[in-house]
Amino acid sequence: MCVATYRCYDDKADFNKKALGIAVGLTVGSWTDLPEARKAEMEKHLGRVISVTVHEPEDLQPGERYADLRIAYPDVNFSRDLPALLVTVFGKLSMDGRIKLLDLDFSPAFTEAFPGPKLGIGGVRELLGIHDRPLLMSIFKSVIGHDLPNLREQFYRQALGGVDLIKDDEILFENPLTPLEKRVETCMEAARQAESETGQKLLYAVNLTGPTSQLAANAKRAIAAGANALLFNALAYGYDVLHELSSDPGIQVPIAAHPAMAGAFYPSPHYGIAAPLLLGKLMRLAGADLVLFPSPYGSVVMPKEENLAVQAALIDPALPVRSSFPVPSAGIHPGLVPLILRDFGHDVVVNAGGGIHGHPQGTAAGGQAFRQAMAAAQEGISLPEAAAQPGKEALKAAIELWGYKE
Amino acid sequence: MCVATYRCYDDKADFNKKALGIAVGLTVGSWTDLPEARKAEMEKHLGRVISVTVHEPEDLQPGERYADLRIAYPDVNFSRDLPALLVTVFGKLSMDGRIKLLDLDFSPAFTEAFPGPKLGIGGVRELLGIHDRPLLMSIFKSVIGHDLPNLREQFYRQALGGVDLIKDDEILFENPLTPLEKRVETCMEAARQAESETGQKLLYAVNLTGPTSQLAANAKRAIAAGANALLFNALAYGYDVLHELSSDPGIQVPIAAHPAMAGAFYPSPHYGIAAPLLLGKLMRLAGADLVLFPSPYGSVVMPKEENLAVQAALIDPALPVRSSFPVPSAGIHPGLVPLILRDFGHDVVVNAGGGIHGHPQGTAAGGQAFRQAMAAAQEGISLPEAAAQPGKEALKAAIELWGYKE
Repeated sequence: MCVATYRCYDDKADFNKKALGIAVGLTVGSWTDLPEARKAEMEKHLGRVISVTVHEPEDLQPGERYADLRIAYPDVNFSRDLPALLVTVFGKLSMDGRIKLLDLDFSPAFTEAFPGPKLGIGGVRELLGIHDRPLLMSIFKSVIGHDLPNLREQFYRQALGGVDLIKDDEILFENPLTPLEKRVETCMEAARQAESETGQKLLYAVNLTGPTSQLAANAKRAIAAGANALLFNALAYGYDVLHELSSDPGIQVPIAAHPAMAGAFYPSPHYGIAAPLLLGKLMRLAGADLVLFPSPYGSVVMPKEENLAVQAALIDPALPVRSSFPVPSAGIHPGLVPLILRDFGHDVVVNAGGGIHGHPQGTAAGGQAFRQAMAAAQEGISLPEAAAQPGKEALKAAIELWGYKE
Repeated sequence: MCVATYRCYDDKADFNKKALGIAVGLTVGSWTDLPEARKAEMEKHLGRVISVTVHEPEDLQPGERYADLRIAYPDVNFSRDLPALLVTVFGKLSMDGRIKLLDLDFSPAFTEAFPGPKLGIGGVRELLGIHDRPLLMSIFKSVIGHDLPNLREQFYRQALGGVDLIKDDEILFENPLTPLEKRVETCMEAARQAESETGQKLLYAVNLTGPTSQLAANAKRAIAAGANALLFNALAYGYDVLHELSSDPGIQVPIAAHPAMAGAFYPSPHYGIAAPLLLGKLMRLAGADLVLFPSPYGSVVMPKEENLAVQAALIDPALPVRSSFPVPSAGIHPGLVPLILRDFGHDVVVNAGGGIHGHPQGTAAGGQAFRQAMAAAQEGISLPEAAAQPGKEALKAAIELWGYKE
């Protein structure tokens, strides 16, 4: 049985009846009017109401009455893929009034079909040889219309700052100025040059795009050209596509799932799919090694508790697949690093765009400021104190510009 | 240029500034600080604000202030596929506050990459040899856990009632009792038997399921086994998968797109993707020959104006691809047929489940009642009057049970 949890708003509904209607309607269709002999045969297909928890305080306002329904769906009813599960539990039902899919608990039989992240947190750390600190990711800025030398220069400056991962802009598609293989070759050459100076390895997540049927081939072309990571707009293609890519034995590099379009699903209290499921559990089951999601700090806001629930889903030991690296993103500058580490702990990728490129001393200094902030936070030194130390000019300039929170 | 229309709610925002931020931020990234020479190079990549229409009446309540923003995105920025377009116009932006994607106007250069429905309304009518009336579709009920003889019997009874299309239950996946090819063979054999009695052709839309990379092969297996139509949960797999299936020269049968999961996108006023775009324009561009969507009559409710806007998008002559057959679904019984025909006109598929299977004289009579109601509506005879005619017992029983609206 896979169990779906829904939040269902209705000022008047008999939620127990509604839950039963779902459990029967989305499985065997009808039950009470079946002959007894038929019931015996059909019982293994019948959905079950696990619980109905009505939220109905005394001072209830119109529109605020809801119930959380938990319904179990027999595995025998659907194939072992996410489209089948999602269509079963939230296909027609998604259109049935104010109802939001909050969570899914997969049965062991279902999860068995999912190898999950090929590398996960441990594998990504292994690739980089970094186990003792959070990772730092940097995002290309404004690269539409840029040519290869321009891209290379921007990549090189990011790499010099000591970042561990550089990701493509998710809106950079196949284009004549910076086509996939050339882009990979150029950026990886810049990565090697930077490594010869910094001694530091780096993953470049190139944006995997194109027609669905060509994605695996494109990934392999990118890998053959030297790509050591992929960025993927998983929600624009579907979880099953991510699942197939992550399960492909020819794709051994980490896949970073971008949350593009996630806002079409999660923010409404009444409709859609909750962020911890959408960007947490499902991305992980489908095999994302790293998952980007809106941070609670920036302009693109997700409440902090929802954020931490996404992280929790990405690392929850109850799911028998590798953990995915949480990458809270947007609005992050070096002054937030202590806060991020307090909120997310050690196994987090600190991801910055403007907070690196907008550094007053340039992009390389932007990366350095983050690394200095990380070191300070790990040593328990306050940022102003660390910034006053010799050699920490990058951090000093960053907190002068953006401030800091501790 | 492809033009996106958004509805953006904000009690205080300067919407002109916001629109400009989107147009620049989602294309060249920054503009005002570019050197003049660079601006000349980048201009062709720059997004443009087409219009900003603020809704701000005098008696505005908190939470109700919004603006409709129209932003044009240069085609040069994205590849000719729907994931690229959607990630560009509503990737990161979907997570940026209360914003809903209302519409997309595709450029001629973009639509050129989309052959659209292979058959469309005209082709489906041609296949069936029916040009002078709306079509009637019937839905399998409760077929999970049923074996082939059982399925055959249900199919046969539906076919005898004079329906033009029979669709699988969208939650029927590959399973040992009724596997894809056996299901097709069995049902098509029943269709032939019924045809020998009724003289009427029939399309059977078998549910196309499985791993994404196997869908085209599964479709061809089904077709080789005799399938003359496919049902597809397009939103669970992604528009690009539908586009690739509909463009596949090996798949010449009509594809009916099911709206499963659509409710995760369209119902919120503040978030997601509006139904006429989600279930209308995008389904059609991606090549669906028939599109199911919630009717305004049933339990799964969509407001009638939104419904008619979905239909309008499916048949709008401005889009240079074939029209998709509108299939308003849910809660439909024979007594609603005159209303449906008045609302949707002649080119509509009347789609019923309970309204056929629940007929007091059985499933075949259910289909007959619909056909009798259709004939009456086309002849301008009221349903009670038609039902009183000899040989119209099926219609009589239906309107006695469910009533009628005219």
